[in-house]
Amino acid sequence: MFFHKQELQFKATPDKPDPIFARKLQEVLGGQYGEITVAMQYGFQAWNSHLPGKYRDLLFGIGAEEMGHVEMLAVMIAQLLEGGPKDDAEDAIQDPTLNAVISGGDVQHAIVAGAGARPVDSNGNPWQGSYITCSGNLLADFTSNANAEMQGRTQVARLYHMTEDKGVRSMLAFLLARDTMHQNQWIAAARELQEEGYEELPVPSTFPLSKEEREVSYQYWNFSDGAAAAEGSWASGPTPDGKGEFSYHDGPTTSAPMPPATQPDVNLHGTMPLSKGPIAKAAGAVKDALT
Amino acid sequence: MFFHKQELQFKATPDKPDPIFARKLQEVLGGQYGEITVAMQYGFQAWNSHLPGKYRDLLFGIGAEEMGHVEMLAVMIAQLLEGGPKDDAEDAIQDPTLNAVISGGDVQHAIVAGAGARPVDSNGNPWQGSYITCSGNLLADFTSNANAEMQGRTQVARLYHMTEDKGVRSMLAFLLARDTMHQNQWIAAARELQEEGYEELPVPSTFPLSKEEREVSYQYWNFSDGAAAAEGSWASGPTPDGKGEFSYHDGPTTSAPMPPATQPDVNLHGTMPLSKGPIAKAAGAVKDALT
Amino acid sequence: MFFHKQELQFKATPDKPDPIFARKLQEVLGGQYGEITVAMQYGFQAWNSHLPGKYRDLLFGIGAEEMGHVEMLAVMIAQLLEGGPKDDAEDAIQDPTLNAVISGGDVQHAIVAGAGARPVDSNGNPWQGSYITCSGNLLADFTSNANAEMQGRTQVARLYHMTEDKGVRSMLAFLLARDTMHQNQWIAAARELQEEGYEELPVPSTFPLSKEEREVSYQYWNFSDGAAAAEGSWASGPTPDGKGEFSYHDGPTTSAPMPPATQPDVNLHGTMPLSKGPIAKAAGAVKDALT
Amino acid sequence: MFFHKQELQFKATPDKPDPIFARKLQEVLGGQYGEITVAMQYGFQAWNSHLPGKYRDLLFGIGAEEMGHVEMLAVMIAQLLEGGPKDDAEDAIQDPTLNAVISGGDVQHAIVAGAGARPVDSNGNPWQGSYITCSGNLLADFTSNANAEMQGRTQVARLYHMTEDKGVRSMLAFLLARDTMHQNQWIAAARELQEEGYEELPVPSTFPLSKEEREVSYQYWNFSDGAAAAEGSWASGPTPDGKGEFSYHDGPTTSAPMPPATQPDVNLHGTMPLSKGPIAKAAGAVKDALT
Amino acid sequence: MFFHKQELQFKATPDKPDPIFARKLQEVLGGQYGEITVAMQYGFQAWNSHLPGKYRDLLFGIGAEEMGHVEMLAVMIAQLLEGGPKDDAEDAIQDPTLNAVISGGDVQHAIVAGAGARPVDSNGNPWQGSYITCSGNLLADFTSNANAEMQGRTQVARLYHMTEDKGVRSMLAFLLARDTMHQNQWIAAARELQEEGYEELPVPSTFPLSKEEREVSYQYWNFSDGAAAAEGSWASGPTPDGKGEFSYHDGPTTSAPMPPATQPDVNLHGTMPLSKGPIAKAAGAVKDALT
Amino acid sequence: MFFHKQELQFKATPDKPDPIFARKLQEVLGGQYGEITVAMQYGFQAWNSHLPGKYRDLLFGIGAEEMGHVEMLAVMIAQLLEGGPKDDAEDAIQDPTLNAVISGGDVQHAIVAGAGARPVDSNGNPWQGSYITCSGNLLADFTSNANAEMQGRTQVARLYHMTEDKGVRSMLAFLLARDTMHQNQWIAAARELQEEGYEELPVPSTFPLSKEEREVSYQYWNFSDGAAAAEGSWASGPTPDGKGEFSYHDGPTTSAPMPPATQPDVNLHGTMPLSKGPIAKAAGAVKDALT
Repeated sequence: MFFHKQELQFKATPDKPDPIFARKLQEVLGGQYGEITVAMQYGFQAWNSHLPGKYRDLLFGIGAEEMGHVEMLAVMIAQLLEGGPKDDAEDAIQDPTLNAVISGGDVQHAIVAGAGARPVDSNGNPWQGSYITCSGNLLADFTSNANAEMQGRTQVARLYHMTEDKGVRSMLAFLLARDTMHQNQWIAAARELQEEGYEELPVPSTFPLSKEEREVSYQYWNFSDGAAAAEGSWASGPTPDGKGEFSYHDGPTTSAPMPPATQPDVNLHGTMPLSKGPIAKAAGAVKDALT
Repeated sequence: MFFHKQELQFKATPDKPDPIFARKLQEVLGGQYGEITVAMQYGFQAWNSHLPGKYRDLLFGIGAEEMGHVEMLAVMIAQLLEGGPKDDAEDAIQDPTLNAVISGGDVQHAIVAGAGARPVDSNGNPWQGSYITCSGNLLADFTSNANAEMQGRTQVARLYHMTEDKGVRSMLAFLLARDTMHQNQWIAAARELQEEGYEELPVPSTFPLSKEEREVSYQYWNFSDGAAAAEGSWASGPTPDGKGEFSYHDGPTTSAPMPPATQPDVNLHGTMPLSKGPIAKAAGAVKDALT
Repeated sequence: MFFHKQELQFKATPDKPDPIFARKLQEVLGGQYGEITVAMQYGFQAWNSHLPGKYRDLLFGIGAEEMGHVEMLAVMIAQLLEGGPKDDAEDAIQDPTLNAVISGGDVQHAIVAGAGARPVDSNGNPWQGSYITCSGNLLADFTSNANAEMQGRTQVARLYHMTEDKGVRSMLAFLLARDTMHQNQWIAAARELQEEGYEELPVPSTFPLSKEEREVSYQYWNFSDGAAAAEGSWASGPTPDGKGEFSYHDGPTTSAPMPPATQPDVNLHGTMPLSKGPIAKAAGAVKDALT
Repeated sequence: MFFHKQELQFKATPDKPDPIFARKLQEVLGGQYGEITVAMQYGFQAWNSHLPGKYRDLLFGIGAEEMGHVEMLAVMIAQLLEGGPKDDAEDAIQDPTLNAVISGGDVQHAIVAGAGARPVDSNGNPWQGSYITCSGNLLADFTSNANAEMQGRTQVARLYHMTEDKGVRSMLAFLLARDTMHQNQWIAAARELQEEGYEELPVPSTFPLSKEEREVSYQYWNFSDGAAAAEGSWASGPTPDGKGEFSYHDGPTTSAPMPPATQPDVNLHGTMPLSKGPIAKAAGAVKDALT
Repeated sequence: MFFHKQELQFKATPDKPDPIFARKLQEVLGGQYGEITVAMQYGFQAWNSHLPGKYRDLLFGIGAEEMGHVEMLAVMIAQLLEGGPKDDAEDAIQDPTLNAVISGGDVQHAIVAGAGARPVDSNGNPWQGSYITCSGNLLADFTSNANAEMQGRTQVARLYHMTEDKGVRSMLAFLLARDTMHQNQWIAAARELQEEGYEELPVPSTFPLSKEEREVSYQYWNFSDGAAAAEGSWASGPTPDGKGEFSYHDGPTTSAPMPPATQPDVNLHGTMPLSKGPIAKAAGAVKDALT
Repeated sequence: MFFHKQELQFKATPDKPDPIFARKLQEVLGGQYGEITVAMQYGFQAWNSHLPGKYRDLLFGIGAEEMGHVEMLAVMIAQLLEGGPKDDAEDAIQDPTLNAVISGGDVQHAIVAGAGARPVDSNGNPWQGSYITCSGNLLADFTSNANAEMQGRTQVARLYHMTEDKGVRSMLAFLLARDTMHQNQWIAAARELQEEGYEELPVPSTFPLSKEEREVSYQYWNFSDGAAAAEGSWASGPTPDGKGEFSYHDGPTTSAPMPPATQPDVNLHGTMPLSKGPIAKAAGAVKDALT
C-alpha cells in the first residue's frame, strides 16, 4: 500500500506563471514517456513479478518515487497556470492578438480544469494504459525501462532549453539527475539478471533455439539500396548473444510464393469469382430457397 | 520509395483454418509490439534521421523487411479464417454452444472484415501511432528497438505454444529467428554508436551534466520497505556510465514543503477561500455590475 | 423515433466570425462533458431503463432536448468559422505572424471540415463512447447526470468570460439557464427515487450490507499526513446513509502481507527463479525434447 | 510524495486460479470507474486544489488509499492467472473446445503480460486520462466523486455474484465496504462545502445568475410524448437550489429560425451555390490566373 | 431541434434473449459503420452545409431517421440481454463451461451496463468522433455516405446469417431495406450534384487543374509485379472524369533523389555528425559555459 | 514483400523551414484520410482479397505507391522543421510572443520527435487502425477508396492555399495529380466490377432481396420539415440500382410501439419496480439468506 506525505522530493515552484510552458510540461507528466507511464510501468512490473527478492524490491522501491514525480509536475503546472487564466479572461478580451497567442497554451487548462494540471500530453492527448510495458520477462522489461528513462531525459533536456524560469529549470535539473540515476540503474539491473543466469540473449532465453529457423538467425538482409549498411558491426563478426556470426545479404535469402486468394463462406458476401454474373444469381436463388 | 513483389519471405500457410488462433495472431500484427509498430518505427526513424551513411541505411534496410512481415501475418490470418466463418454461419446456428465458442475468435473478423485480417491487436484495439518511438536520439531509439524485438519475440514464443498447426509453427519459427537477428542487430548498433563517439550514457549525452542536480545522480532511493533492494549492483559500485558511484538510501535525501494551494482567476469559478459565503456574494455582485 | 424541425431552441448566431473562439466552443459540443455526451447519456439511460413511467419519460423528454443543443453549437461554430478561413488562406499568407496566430484555432476546422463544426473537443480529441455513463442503477446514474450538468455549466461560464460577442454570449446565457434547470431536475429526481423507496444509500441498495466487510464501512483512513482531514464531517458523526457513525483513523485499521511472487507456466517465458542458469538450461533441454 | 509498504490493506488471494474471472475483474482495476480512475482523480483534485486545509487534506488522504486498491486488484489478478496459462498452453491444445473456452479470458493476459494484470478494462480497452474529472470546482467534483463510488460499488456487487471463490469474495467484501465509506464521505463533504458557504447550487455559484436567461431556468420542457414526466417533482414545486419554482411545458417555450447555410472562403472548396456550373468555371479561371 | 416519439419505425423485439448475439449486434449500433456514425455524419453535414434547399433538407431529413435506428438497436440489445445475466450470475456458477461460454458475450453488458446496450462496437471499442466524415464538399461526402450504407448493409447481411431468431431477423430485414434505400439515395444525390453543375470530377472541382502536375494525372504506376493490372479499365482508355486518357507504366515515370539527412538545432539533442566524439565534447563545453 | 529504394517519386524539399506548416501537413500524412490510411487500406484489401488477377494486382500495385507518399511527406516535414526548433529554443526565449506564436506548430515536433515527422494528424491525434476500411466486398471497398481519394485531394488543395513555399507547392501539385489519377482509377474499377458481373447494387448483391422488407426499400422518409427534399431525384423516378421506383413520404410509413422496460436479473442491481421499498427489503433478505 501507499502512504502520502505532504512534501515534495524537490522544490517545484516557478518564478512566475507561464501557461504556454505549462502546456509543454504536460508532455513529461502525461505523455507516452511521462511520469505517469513510468510510475504505472514499474508498479505493474512489481505486482506481476515472478522473482522474489531484490528485483521485486527494486521495482517497488522506484515505482513510488515516480508517483512523487507525477505530483511534482502536477503541482508545478498548477502554479504555472496561476496567473495565466486571469490574463486570458480579462486582458485578453481587449487584445484579440494576445487572446490568440495565449491559445498557444492548452485551452483545456482553462476551460476544463480551471487552471489545473491534466493527465494528458502536450497536445492534449489523454494518457493511456497502452503506453506501458509489462511482459513478465525482466530482461525485456528492464530494457524497456532503460529506454523510457532515455526518452524521458531527452524530453526534459529539450524542455530545459525552452524556458529561462529559474524555478522551473531547477526542478528540471532535479528530474534530469534522477533520470541519469534510473538509466544507470536499469542498465545495471539488466546486466545483473544476465550475470546471475536468470536471462540471456536472445529474449526470451527459455525458448529452445532449435525450434527457430536457425539458418536466418544472424543474417542481415538489406531491403533497401543503401550499401553502407554492410559496413556496420551488425553485418559481420560475432553476434552480441555469443551464439553466432553476422552475415550480410543484399535482400532475403529465402522466399515463398504468395498464397492464392482466399475463398471464405459465401454468407460473408465478399467479392469472389463465384459471385460473378449468372453464377451469383443462381447462388442467390439457391440461398433464397434454403436460408 | 517502395516496390512490392508478390512473394513472401517465408511460407505462410496454415495446415487448416483456426479462427481462434487467427485472433491471437492479431497481437503480433497490430498490437503494441506487432509488426506494424516496428515497420512504422524504423520507417520514421529513417525519414527523420540526422546521420547519413550506415545508420540511416540500416534503418531503411530493415524497415522494408518489417512491412513484409506485416504482409505475411495478414495473409496467414486470412487463411486461418477461410473456413471459420462457414462454421460460424451455418453449423453454429444449429449448435449454440459452438456458436458461442467461436466467439472466442474476433467477431469483427467475420462481421467487419468478411474473413480478413485487421489492423488491430488480439483484443480488437486498433493499432495506433502512439505505439511508435522516434526521438531523433539514436542511442535512445536503438534501445527502444531492442526492446521492441524482445517483446515481439516473447509474444511469438508464447503463441508458438498455443498451436500445433505445423504451417503456423513453421512461420513462427521464421519470425523467431528474425527477431533473434534484430535483437542482436540493435544491440550491436547501439554499441557501435557509443564506440564511435556519437552518443554515450546518460542519454542525451550532449546535455551538459553540470546543469543537472549532480548530488542525486547516482543515489538509489528506496521508496518501499523491501530491504533486498540494497543488495543489487544498482545500490553500490561504479555506475554503467562510468561517471559515478552508486549509493543506497532508505528514502529520499532531499525534500521540499508542499507549495500552498493555488489561487487562480475568479472567472474560472474554482472553489477558493474567497468563494466562501458573504465574500462570494459580494464578489458576485461586483462582477454582476462590471462584467 | 426522432423528428427534426428546422428551428433552434434559441438564437445561435454570432455578431462576427471568430475561429479561435470556435475552437474553444468545441469543448461543450464534443468534449467529455459536452452536449453529445449528455444527449447520448440520457438516450442510453432511456433505452436501457427498467422503470416504466415518469422516470423513463423524463429521460426520453430531456434526451431529445440535448440533441437540439448539439445542433445549436454546431450551427454556431460553423458561423464563427465563416469568415475565418478566408483570412487564413489569403491575408495570413502575407503576414506570417497572423498566420501563426490563427493557428490558435483548430486547424482541422479548415483542413478537414472546410469551415465546419466537428465531433471533437477544444483540443481536437474525437468524442468517444467511453464518456457516457449508463449503469441501469438510476440513483447512481442521476448522480452522474447532476455532475455532468455541473461540469457543463462550469465550462460554459468560463467560455462566457472569454468572448465579448453579444450573439455568442446570448446563446451561452441560454445554455447556462438550461444547465441550471437540469442540475435542479436531476437532484430532484435522485431525491424522489429515494423518497419513493426505489433506491437508498449506499448504492446499489439491493446488495445485502451483511455481505460487505462492515467493520470498515464508516472508517475514515488518512493515508496522508494532513491532520485537518480529521475536522471534516466525514470523520465523525452520523453518516449520510443513516446506517452508521464515521470514525477517524490515521492510516488503515487492517492489513495483510504481500502475497508471494506468482509462478505461472514456464511456456510464458517470464523471468522466474526456475529460469536461472543451469536449471533453465535443463528446462530448455527437456522442453526441447518434448514440445 | 508517496511511500510504499509491502503490505496490503486486506487479504487478496484467491482460493484457486480463474483466468476468466481475472478478465472480469480488470473492469474495476482499469475501467472507466476502476481504481486507477479514482486514484488519479483524487490525486489531480488534490494537486490542483485551491482550498487549503481539510478539503485538500481529505483529497490527499484518500488518493493514496485508492492507489493501494489498484495494487490489491493487480496482485489478485496475477494470482488468478497463475495456473491459467498452463492449461491454456498444454491441456488446451489437446482439447480445442477448452482452448476456445479459455479465450473467454483476456488473451492478452497470456500473450502480452505473461500471466499478469494489465491497465485495461474487462474488454481490453486501455485505461485513459479522459476518464477522470477535475474542474477545480469542488461541489461539481465531489458530486463526480460520489458518482464514481456509486458506479464502482455497483460493479463490484455484480462481480461478487459472478464468483464463488471465497478468497475473491472476501476481497470484494472489503472493497464494497470501502465504497460504502467513500460514498458517504463525498456526500458529507459536498454538504459541508455548501453549509460553510463555499459553494451553492447551481454550480458554479460564483457566476452571476442575472447573466443567464432566467426565464427558462426552471422550466421542464418535454421533448418526448411521455405524459408521465409531468408527475415528477421536477415538473412543479420549489427547486432544490431554493431559487425558483419548477413548471412543466410540452416542448420548448422559445424558438428561433435555423440560420441560413454558411458561405465560407472559396479556397476551402466546399460545395456552394457559387460553385454551380458556369459560375464555378469562371471562378476557377479567375483563381487560375491569380493564385 | 429534435422531438422524440415513444414509437419505433419497426418492431424490434427478439423471440428470446441471446447475450452473445447482443454483443455481435453492437457492431451496427456503435461500430465504425454503425448507426451512431451515420446519424452523426448526416447531422454534421447538415449543420455545416453551404447549400440551402433540397440538399440540406435531404441531410436533415435522413439524419433524424438514423437516430431512430440507433434507438431501435439499443432497445433490441437491451431485450436480448434481459434473461442473459440471470444465467450468467446463477446457473453459470455451477457450470464453469457455460460460465466461460457466456463470456462470448460482451462482459461489460453485465458488469458496466447492468444488461443494457452500450455505445461501443462488437469488440467493446467505444464509438468515436473520428469515424465520421464531413468535409463541406458534397460530392466527396455523398460518396462517403454511399460507402457507409454499403458497409452497413454488408454487416447487417452477415449478422442476418448468424441468428435464427425471427424477431431479430425481422428487424434486420427492415434495416437491410432502409440501407438499400439509402445506397440508392446517395448515389442519386451524387449524380444530381454533378448534373446540376455543383461539382464534377476530380473532387474538389474548383481547384484549378492547371496547378496540379498534369503529366502524371492519368498514369497507372504499377509498384508491384502483378502483370494483370495492365488489363483493367484503369490502365487504358478514357478516364471517368472525361478529361484524359489512362496509360499504364511499370513503376513511376518520375523520381528524385532522397534529400540529405536533416541537421536540426543542437539543443534538441538528436544524434548528428556533430555529436561525435571530441566535437561533441567541445560543443558540450561551449554550451556549458553559455547556456 | 517490399523493397525500398532511396529515391522519392517526386522532389520533396521546401524552400525554407516552416514549423507551422509542418504541423498542418501532418493531416495528410497521419490523419483520417492521410497517406498512412490509404497505404494500409489498399494493403489490407490486397492481403484479404478473394479475387485473383487484375483486381488484386491493382490493390498491390497502388498500395506500395502510397507507402512512398508516406515517405515523401515525412521527409518534407522533417525538412520544414529543420530550422524551426532553433528559433524555438534560442530566439524565442528572449521573445515571449514569438515563443507563443511558435506554439502554433506541433509542440511534440520539438519535445518528442526532436524535429521529426510523427504518425499523427494536424491536431496531434495518433493515426489509428480504425481509419481503414476493408470488408472483402470490393464494390463497397472501391467506393470507400474513391471517397478517400476525394477527401485526400480536397485536403491537399486546402493546404496548397496555406503556403507560398514553391518547394512545398510543387510536391502538393504532384500529390494532387496522383489523387486525380486514383479517383479516376477507383471509379473505373468499381464500374468494371459491375460490368463484369461481380457485384451490383445494392451492396452486397449476393444477399437475396426477397429477405429484406421490400415495401420500404425505395421510400424516401422525410424526418425533418424541409419540403425541398421532395424535389430531388431521390424522391421520385427510377432508382440507380434499376430495381425500383423512388417515392416520397412525409415521415415513416411503418411504426411499432416502444417495447416495455426490460426486467433483467436482480443480481445486476438495476433500478426496477421490484426494487421499491418493502419489496426490495424482502428481496434483500431472501438473497441475504441464499447467496
